[in-house]
Amino acid sequence: MFDKLKEECGVFGIWGHPEASNLTYLGLHALQHRGQEAAGIVSSDGTSLHLHKELGLVTDVFDAGKLAKLPGSTAIGHVRYSTAGGRGIKNTQPFAVDCGGKPLAIAHNGNLVNAESARRTLEGQGAIFFSSSDTEVVLHLVARQPERELTERIRLALEQVHGAYSLLFLSDDQLIGVRDPRGFRPLILGKLKGAWILASETCALDLIEAEYVREIEPGEMVVIDRNGVKSLHPFAPAPAARCVFEHVYFARPDSLVFGRSVYESRTRQGAILAKEHPVEADLVIPCPDSGVPAAIGYAEASGIPFGMGIVRSHYVGRTFIEPTQQIRHFGVKLKLNALRRVLEGKRVVVVDDSIVRGTTSRKVVKMLRAAGAKEIHMRISSPPTSWPCYYGVDTPTRSELISASHSVEEIAKYITADTLGYLSLEGLYESVGSDGKGFCDACFSGKYPVSFPVEEEKRLLRVVEA
Amino acid sequence: MFDKLKEECGVFGIWGHPEASNLTYLGLHALQHRGQEAAGIVSSDGTSLHLHKELGLVTDVFDAGKLAKLPGSTAIGHVRYSTAGGRGIKNTQPFAVDCGGKPLAIAHNGNLVNAESARRTLEGQGAIFFSSSDTEVVLHLVARQPERELTERIRLALEQVHGAYSLLFLSDDQLIGVRDPRGFRPLILGKLKGAWILASETCALDLIEAEYVREIEPGEMVVIDRNGVKSLHPFAPAPAARCVFEHVYFARPDSLVFGRSVYESRTRQGAILAKEHPVEADLVIPCPDSGVPAAIGYAEASGIPFGMGIVRSHYVGRTFIEPTQQIRHFGVKLKLNALRRVLEGKRVVVVDDSIVRGTTSRKVVKMLRAAGAKEIHMRISSPPTSWPCYYGVDTPTRSELISASHSVEEIAKYITADTLGYLSLEGLYESVGSDGKGFCDACFSGKYPVSFPVEEEKRLLRVVEA
Amino acid sequence: MFDKLKEECGVFGIWGHPEASNLTYLGLHALQHRGQEAAGIVSSDGTSLHLHKELGLVTDVFDAGKLAKLPGSTAIGHVRYSTAGGRGIKNTQPFAVDCGGKPLAIAHNGNLVNAESARRTLEGQGAIFFSSSDTEVVLHLVARQPERELTERIRLALEQVHGAYSLLFLSDDQLIGVRDPRGFRPLILGKLKGAWILASETCALDLIEAEYVREIEPGEMVVIDRNGVKSLHPFAPAPAARCVFEHVYFARPDSLVFGRSVYESRTRQGAILAKEHPVEADLVIPCPDSGVPAAIGYAEASGIPFGMGIVRSHYVGRTFIEPTQQIRHFGVKLKLNALRRVLEGKRVVVVDDSIVRGTTSRKVVKMLRAAGAKEIHMRISSPPTSWPCYYGVDTPTRSELISASHSVEEIAKYITADTLGYLSLEGLYESVGSDGKGFCDACFSGKYPVSFPVEEEKRLLRVVEA
Amino acid sequence: MFDKLKEECGVFGIWGHPEASNLTYLGLHALQHRGQEAAGIVSSDGTSLHLHKELGLVTDVFDAGKLAKLPGSTAIGHVRYSTAGGRGIKNTQPFAVDCGGKPLAIAHNGNLVNAESARRTLEGQGAIFFSSSDTEVVLHLVARQPERELTERIRLALEQVHGAYSLLFLSDDQLIGVRDPRGFRPLILGKLKGAWILASETCALDLIEAEYVREIEPGEMVVIDRNGVKSLHPFAPAPAARCVFEHVYFARPDSLVFGRSVYESRTRQGAILAKEHPVEADLVIPCPDSGVPAAIGYAEASGIPFGMGIVRSHYVGRTFIEPTQQIRHFGVKLKLNALRRVLEGKRVVVVDDSIVRGTTSRKVVKMLRAAGAKEIHMRISSPPTSWPCYYGVDTPTRSELISASHSVEEIAKYITADTLGYLSLEGLYESVGSDGKGFCDACFSGKYPVSFPVEEEKRLLRVVEA
Repeated sequence: MFDKLKEECGVFGIWGHPEASNLTYLGLHALQHRGQEAAGIVSSDGTSLHLHKELGLVTDVFDAGKLAKLPGSTAIGHVRYSTAGGRGIKNTQPFAVDCGGKPLAIAHNGNLVNAESARRTLEGQGAIFFSSSDTEVVLHLVARQPERELTERIRLALEQVHGAYSLLFLSDDQLIGVRDPRGFRPLILGKLKGAWILASETCALDLIEAEYVREIEPGEMVVIDRNGVKSLHPFAPAPAARCVFEHVYFARPDSLVFGRSVYESRTRQGAILAKEHPVEADLVIPCPDSGVPAAIGYAEASGIPFGMGIVRSHYVGRTFIEPTQQIRHFGVKLKLNALRRVLEGKRVVVVDDSIVRGTTSRKVVKMLRAAGAKEIHMRISSPPTSWPCYYGVDTPTRSELISASHSVEEIAKYITADTLGYLSLEGLYESVGSDGKGFCDACFSGKYPVSFPVEEEKRLLRVVEA
Repeated sequence: MFDKLKEECGVFGIWGHPEASNLTYLGLHALQHRGQEAAGIVSSDGTSLHLHKELGLVTDVFDAGKLAKLPGSTAIGHVRYSTAGGRGIKNTQPFAVDCGGKPLAIAHNGNLVNAESARRTLEGQGAIFFSSSDTEVVLHLVARQPERELTERIRLALEQVHGAYSLLFLSDDQLIGVRDPRGFRPLILGKLKGAWILASETCALDLIEAEYVREIEPGEMVVIDRNGVKSLHPFAPAPAARCVFEHVYFARPDSLVFGRSVYESRTRQGAILAKEHPVEADLVIPCPDSGVPAAIGYAEASGIPFGMGIVRSHYVGRTFIEPTQQIRHFGVKLKLNALRRVLEGKRVVVVDDSIVRGTTSRKVVKMLRAAGAKEIHMRISSPPTSWPCYYGVDTPTRSELISASHSVEEIAKYITADTLGYLSLEGLYESVGSDGKGFCDACFSGKYPVSFPVEEEKRLLRVVEA
Repeated sequence: MFDKLKEECGVFGIWGHPEASNLTYLGLHALQHRGQEAAGIVSSDGTSLHLHKELGLVTDVFDAGKLAKLPGSTAIGHVRYSTAGGRGIKNTQPFAVDCGGKPLAIAHNGNLVNAESARRTLEGQGAIFFSSSDTEVVLHLVARQPERELTERIRLALEQVHGAYSLLFLSDDQLIGVRDPRGFRPLILGKLKGAWILASETCALDLIEAEYVREIEPGEMVVIDRNGVKSLHPFAPAPAARCVFEHVYFARPDSLVFGRSVYESRTRQGAILAKEHPVEADLVIPCPDSGVPAAIGYAEASGIPFGMGIVRSHYVGRTFIEPTQQIRHFGVKLKLNALRRVLEGKRVVVVDDSIVRGTTSRKVVKMLRAAGAKEIHMRISSPPTSWPCYYGVDTPTRSELISASHSVEEIAKYITADTLGYLSLEGLYESVGSDGKGFCDACFSGKYPVSFPVEEEKRLLRVVEA
Repeated sequence: MFDKLKEECGVFGIWGHPEASNLTYLGLHALQHRGQEAAGIVSSDGTSLHLHKELGLVTDVFDAGKLAKLPGSTAIGHVRYSTAGGRGIKNTQPFAVDCGGKPLAIAHNGNLVNAESARRTLEGQGAIFFSSSDTEVVLHLVARQPERELTERIRLALEQVHGAYSLLFLSDDQLIGVRDPRGFRPLILGKLKGAWILASETCALDLIEAEYVREIEPGEMVVIDRNGVKSLHPFAPAPAARCVFEHVYFARPDSLVFGRSVYESRTRQGAILAKEHPVEADLVIPCPDSGVPAAIGYAEASGIPFGMGIVRSHYVGRTFIEPTQQIRHFGVKLKLNALRRVLEGKRVVVVDDSIVRGTTSRKVVKMLRAAGAKEIHMRISSPPTSWPCYYGVDTPTRSELISASHSVEEIAKYITADTLGYLSLEGLYESVGSDGKGFCDACFSGKYPVSFPVEEEKRLLRVVEA
């Protein structure tokens, strides 16, 4: 419904706990914000893998009966965002296959930039594909050298792909986590008594009261089995390129991502934004819920009172039916409502994390104006989003990104705000305590850390058009 | 899951719109917070009534196909909270019956204190009851004088019952709203072009872009039909007793209730609380989401910075399965998570709206302490809740209300807070701009505006035990 | 889908078995042919009644979890046929109400001819109706004298209604069965060790391995409680009028109905038909499955070989979707298929139980002709069905009954059969071992044993039009 | 529920009809008896394949909405029987994959005897397997030579597998049917105006009013595309081995199978059985429904009257819940009921098609005895089933086949029949108009036309144990 970039996936794995699938269920629940379209869990009982996956939210996909059919002390799970239509049940993860006579499952957060050409090569060698997912390519590559050790096969396979991947593999006796050499997407290691956990964000640890151990490093492979945790660095080193947008919008504010508090980054984004784009106003309000921390930061830094001028409904699910005949489109009102008594006659600063197409921002500004706000100053806690992401984020095509073709003034005019201010890239890096090294900011700068083959470009554009 | 008093119902009705049931659906969606257990809509096509109701959320109970089977330009709807077990499908509303050969439907927010004795009298006269609801009693009483006008029959019926009722009636050609003489529960009148609307709160108007006209007065009966809107005051006048707790917790912050902004009342509660119970601290945080406005008010009045030290998950639905074998009870953690990086080493003021049993507050305090908070000062934006409500709110028995038997110090100790402060009753009234006249505060004071027959007392206590 | 008269209901009750609701479930399953639209069970645990009912087949409406929520050693159940549209969930049975402060449930097979006027009287006295069912009228009448014994209240109530009823009542401590003085619809008594059973047909006893005791007599009331089984005859005697069509089509062939084997009646119908309407032919085939016994009887009496020239699919459920665009209507072919190799070049006698509108017979004859049959001689094991039934059977209006307005020759021509022969009424009575006394044959003769008030006539016609 | 061998699959394909998926739905419905556990359809719109498959009956798996999402003028479908547990959703067919960059779907009736070794070889070459189905092996083999024509790739693939296969392939522009050189399982060609149809049995043609063209020959490959129908015989010839059991039990009686009427074969089996095993008796009854044609044949040949002494319920679905606490196991009574009035005091011949474990026959005999039959003579319209089938039939292990280890006398004693007679193998061949050449009778004779690798034997036994 909303005009946001969409993180495509979250992963969770656990090794060595008698309730592995139950804990994976809880972990996926905590990671639900990273993918709301499908969920799946594979467990290993030491001999066989057991799989259940479906379209839907974690709480809809699983119940006590289904979890009971996922026995064993090791499990991996996946939540997925998938664009409408093109990515049905056949593309939900984890995938579980027989590979060299042994069961193997995989869960992937990220996106491979050379998946299509690798797929064509494999097809030329006689491989058949059950899905249209780039992740299936990895499984085929792993299967090519059946006589070797699994870790070695994974290494050889991943050397042939490029792009973003935080991957979990589950065999009958091993849980393996791998992060690509750039480390685009997050992956962390946790511990719950004797059990080891791999997850996209620390909020999954908090829920099950597990302990945060550390970030898996870019390019690291972690092998967890009865011998404990082994760390490998099998790939050629490359400059890190962690996704800075995780700290703007994707991650939950209560998570540590790349070793740093997301909430802290966001309140600092607000504070720096207040310095970069000050304005005289009576009230600072967030666009809920994602804009709350930055709005608090802006209010505190500017000294302007903070308030909740917009209320968000907690009951807007995916099945909402909009009557279509004679009543008009309710748009954003199904989710957000402005408070006339708070806004009336006020000069209001509205803080949001990003503007993608501009359509929602425009509706929000109009709603605030209709509720009596005298002036509306939109402040965005990140730089203009002008380039599509090819590393595991669902972005519209360049032509749909309003910042790609419009100046800040033009955007302000389109969304009907009195003023509009974006956080600078420098400000954003300051907010995450960095000078910009080690991060990917391609969606802001167009500087892509991993280039994609020319022949891939059309495909990538096609994918984002879907 | 949470330790809150529960509003039992919300109602919505519309007269004179070609999409009556679609708009009722939207209106109920906006009122979903007043009842999450069941939802129903009855429409009138001018001749017959059409009914659909089920257990579940509004978005689950209805879809486009079901709404299409509710034709006509008039409709009423109901959302319901019902305690576990005792109140199945047979008690969901609206009720639709044949009464004197004509169809009649009813939707009720409130509770009758003499329902049981009225029911016994009716049963002695040969009436049969399909439900265990007090609302069915009203229908039987309305049916007793079939030869009279409907409004007169409703008047005669309601003279025989006592307690709290904001009622909507739907016949083939009239929409009638009635509020009991004390006006315990809210009811408002709105307008959408030529159509008239009756609803529990104004947030239902905002969603469908209808205009707020006015509060229906205590003791008023509003009759809407082809002749327009007629206002009657058929009952003997009585001192008003509007539920002050609507401004503490029940109503949505973006609603006007009793003609006053709920958000404003709540921020003022926080501000007054800051004066009544000041404390030296580093951070004011709300218990989300209901504590947010009061926390903002407290922070502003005290000058202590405001922050979101607790994050709330948006994905906790009613179907959440807690694994039960070897993993411990996750309690509030499924819904709330504390932010270590925000809380660590801090002296924290936590603002919540009320404490019922104390169990959740205790878990929240412990969670904050575990996340590193150095001091925890709990502030409650209402007085101690010491008495059960018999006017349409689901409260535990007196023996379960921690304030009924414990001093503030004892409660502070139980919930393991460093200090605990409740808003005074005077402060609460100040927050709603009143000297206390015209409101019901029985849950705080034990002063019940409508007494219940001695023989009812046991029943009422039984009901609340259910 | 098929052109048949429809029995409207089946009932089952059991007293004194620890698995009362499970056995009721099995009993209803055996009676499923008497009503496929809805099913319900009420159990009594000695204090409260527990109800579950839904639209659907018995096996769809109930599962282990739902049966587990129907505790107690006494239960009644109901299966129902309901015409499309007009008779939704609110009319499914059993009904369970509070009546004079005590729980009471009812299940009804039959139809009251004066329900409408009784309802108007009750409405004039202030009664409200939750359904449009005639059965609810009985409950209201029972409730009128709350101070008396239940059996006496039932007697007084039933003295005010006329028509067909085999009724089961369940209170907290009694199971009561009543059959109207004419005994239109069947009702039998059975025994399973210490438990007593009341059911529409004996096939329900066979399934649970219970013993057949006897038919409940027309006008008899049977009261089962801790004092055992008591038989009352509370009504003024009247000539019996058992529905002879039960032996033609409604009942299962393995049942005893009115103390007589249904299978035996049907094979004799076929044998008598062979004498009344002989023909030279090569093969006798049934229209499956209902025509099988009569076809066997016809074949044996005529000496013509019996064969299955039509195969019936067992997988045609109620949810079958007929593609509607470019492929034509498949009509009976979804259910029936003719066997070319059996029929080719043959002179075929087709035996069916009745012709209602003639549409299906026409399709069957055409299907047989297309499969190569040289001559087709349709034989019907009952007289022409020329009058609607008002005693618990769903019949079309008179104008839709082909026999009401067409001669046998005209019907033969319409259905394109070479010849057509109906069993005579005398022959039918011979098949059930009777001279015609004690049976109702209104659907064949137009002689209605219970007249219906003039003012009811229009309603009855309206009902059958619905 | 019943003690029968189970045909494992049915297939249907259509080329060149604007309602391809709707007609496939109808065709699968007619073939439902060949597999009740899962159903699926793949359609081709000329560019892409569209797939829907699920566990359940055809009418449950598909509805109008799902069929509407299967566009195009070509489609294939599959119904499947699968043993409980081991063969979940991942093994349902059709399979649809990308193979050499082009979409390809497959539907299979039969079983490959060397699937396991072929799979191991493929895994050694790096293939990954998403299912445990032998059919997936064929897809991998087809994918091995991506540069060739599809028909040539199929030929090369099938040369590497052995066993039973009637296969349908669907690409974007071709529908291909192949039958293994022995022709174990049936496959026929039909025509509906300009459209071509491939199906397991002719009953699928009858329903959609298509014309029967001919049997696809053993070893034939039929290629249907815009150039019409092309017939190839790409494999080395081998003696035909059509499954004779199709004519005993698997096929529908209204089908032509191997060019011959199944109903005719069955009535002849009964007639020959009457000559081989005559007995003095009063009544011949079938074990419904499969025993009906043979019982008719037995009755006619013996001159003993035919009757329906057992009634079968049409409402026993797969979801039937048997109450388990205090009531005993109802076994066969949920489906079958004996008619006391027909059987009492009679000497009865019961005709059934086969005895597998003997458990059901024993229950049937006891039920007949309890219903009063004086003598019970069981006659079986096929020889003793003593060997498991490895060619696409779900049989129990040899140790469970009562005929494998018991003499006819011992079996008669176990099932408590007075006498027991099996049709001889010669009699069976006489019934299908053959001298035995061209048929497979391995389940009776142990003579397996296609041997299975020694290393496969253990697997095959394991599979049948699952």
